[in-house]
Amino acid sequence: MNSMRRIAIDAMGGENAPEAIIKAVLRAKKELKETQFLLFGNKEEISKYLPSEELDNQIEIINTSEIISDEDEPVRAIRRKKDSSLVVAANYVKTGKADGLLSLGNTGALLAAGIFIVGRIKGVERPGLMPTLPVKNSDNGFNMIDVGANAQAKPEYLVKWAQMASFYAEKVRGIKNPKVALLNNGAEYDKGDDLHKNVYQLLQAEPINFIGNIEGNQLLSGMADVVVTDGFTGNAVLKNIEGTSSTILHLIKDALINGSFITKIGALLIKGALKSIKSKFDTAKYGGAVLLGLKSPVVKTHGRSDQRAIYYTLIQIDKMIEEDLTSVFTAEFSKNDDK
Amino acid sequence: MNSMRRIAIDAMGGENAPEAIIKAVLRAKKELKETQFLLFGNKEEISKYLPSEELDNQIEIINTSEIISDEDEPVRAIRRKKDSSLVVAANYVKTGKADGLLSLGNTGALLAAGIFIVGRIKGVERPGLMPTLPVKNSDNGFNMIDVGANAQAKPEYLVKWAQMASFYAEKVRGIKNPKVALLNNGAEYDKGDDLHKNVYQLLQAEPINFIGNIEGNQLLSGMADVVVTDGFTGNAVLKNIEGTSSTILHLIKDALINGSFITKIGALLIKGALKSIKSKFDTAKYGGAVLLGLKSPVVKTHGRSDQRAIYYTLIQIDKMIEEDLTSVFTAEFSKNDDK
Repeated sequence: MNSMRRIAIDAMGGENAPEAIIKAVLRAKKELKETQFLLFGNKEEISKYLPSEELDNQIEIINTSEIISDEDEPVRAIRRKKDSSLVVAANYVKTGKADGLLSLGNTGALLAAGIFIVGRIKGVERPGLMPTLPVKNSDNGFNMIDVGANAQAKPEYLVKWAQMASFYAEKVRGIKNPKVALLNNGAEYDKGDDLHKNVYQLLQAEPINFIGNIEGNQLLSGMADVVVTDGFTGNAVLKNIEGTSSTILHLIKDALINGSFITKIGALLIKGALKSIKSKFDTAKYGGAVLLGLKSPVVKTHGRSDQRAIYYTLIQIDKMIEEDLTSVFTAEFSKNDDK
Repeated sequence: MNSMRRIAIDAMGGENAPEAIIKAVLRAKKELKETQFLLFGNKEEISKYLPSEELDNQIEIINTSEIISDEDEPVRAIRRKKDSSLVVAANYVKTGKADGLLSLGNTGALLAAGIFIVGRIKGVERPGLMPTLPVKNSDNGFNMIDVGANAQAKPEYLVKWAQMASFYAEKVRGIKNPKVALLNNGAEYDKGDDLHKNVYQLLQAEPINFIGNIEGNQLLSGMADVVVTDGFTGNAVLKNIEGTSSTILHLIKDALINGSFITKIGALLIKGALKSIKSKFDTAKYGGAVLLGLKSPVVKTHGRSDQRAIYYTLIQIDKMIEEDLTSVFTAEFSKNDDK
């Protein structure tokens, strides 16, 4: 049983906790026979959704008495709520009783738990938060790093994020020689502020497939597999993709619902076609956002995630544990001088 | 005739030049009886689209022999191509022979012409580029400044942009006490990198209606009339709005065109409703992007603009000249110490 991969799951975070989380675990457990799922949270609450026949060697419940909510101040919360589902789960990872961590709760608290409890890989000064996002006309998607773990950026951070994300795209997502681009305000090498000009030069010297700058309107085009950006810009752009797409889809829905009788009939007829777009832009299947640069995989999924999105995130974490990215990064970064 | 407002128009810039530009002028001239339109460019080319009966005291053609293309390096182009439509038009504004400038051509060259030929208002160290963008459920739209005239930002720049854009929203767009927000990576006052934390504090002390931070997903919600941001983030976000919305609309179009027979019939029936969305998200009616902080209005419209978009931009420039924003800014900024 010790050779099993073990995923620590904060079962109390997110809007659909713990039900959606447990359903996702029950689905994942059928496929990942070598994986154990550790559920941290209120045992009574969790047991409600867990049929007794499912309680086998693949599932364990660890009872915890506290919950970190979205309103909690992240760093204080992980220091004070010692018996919260998140903190206890993170400690399991720290002490080697689990190999990866999933939470749907307070993003800041998960980042803090990742950095202060799970810990950084030697040589990675600042971990970066990295989701996988959809692209047009392909099922591949792209990784964007950092989308907000760090408001303040230095050139070295971005270079390390590029290295790690390139490895991730290759090992976890199976993309050969992933194309890495820098989010910038123009195509030419000399574009951008000092930070981004500097990063451009540094990335050219790295043994990755750096294809140059990418602009904000090209992100969803699929021209890059990995997009590197500072956390401030990345955060604004990520939220903007969400806001713009949901605004447009809402407007379309409104127009169809409030339209004439003819429009309503038309809306019924195109329903199937619109669903196919939704599946094209299906972010669920890409899993969660990885806090890249930690000693073990730590992944955040959206608080509104349904069981399907959580299921894909479990598959993603399992793959990260299997590929043992931490060892790859550690070997890679110890070649250079350590800080 | 000297009391007329005079708009200098680079008739050679943009994909549809000069035809679309001249059509727009002919439409605007019927409404703006007090305005004169100065067309700079190849006289022969321009005359082709200009019926001789329209050549009255409201229209003048100034023949120029050179054109600045999108491929030209901006600063070099405005220094070397002295007889280009853009440079000659900008010189008309500089010497008081015109009151405002419109171009659809090379954005960088227009920014350079604005700053180096038309000139900055005393007290404005860095002009900011400011489009008006659409919002959901309202015809008002919002102004975003700076979207890329400055890659490098300082807190004082953003504060001045906020002041100027607030005036603009009030005087030109007719919004009483416009709500001004700072694009940031969280709602709380202490969010962001050092630059944005600093700007937050400074904006609170300004006599404008500062409503706090706005996040990337809220831009199109209409919660702010003016959004202030550094030019690097603003550029990424503006391009991202364009890229995301066009990607989604393309996907929908593709799904409808390549769908089943039933889908195609449905697509025909909803055509009207989809058009109503397009008119909701009609950026043309908001005019062009203003380079705010210059001694006279200088406005850029998209190179792909049709005559309708250009027409609205002429109306916008006319309104800016009428409201004499420069005097307002000059009076306002001379209260403080000048740099």
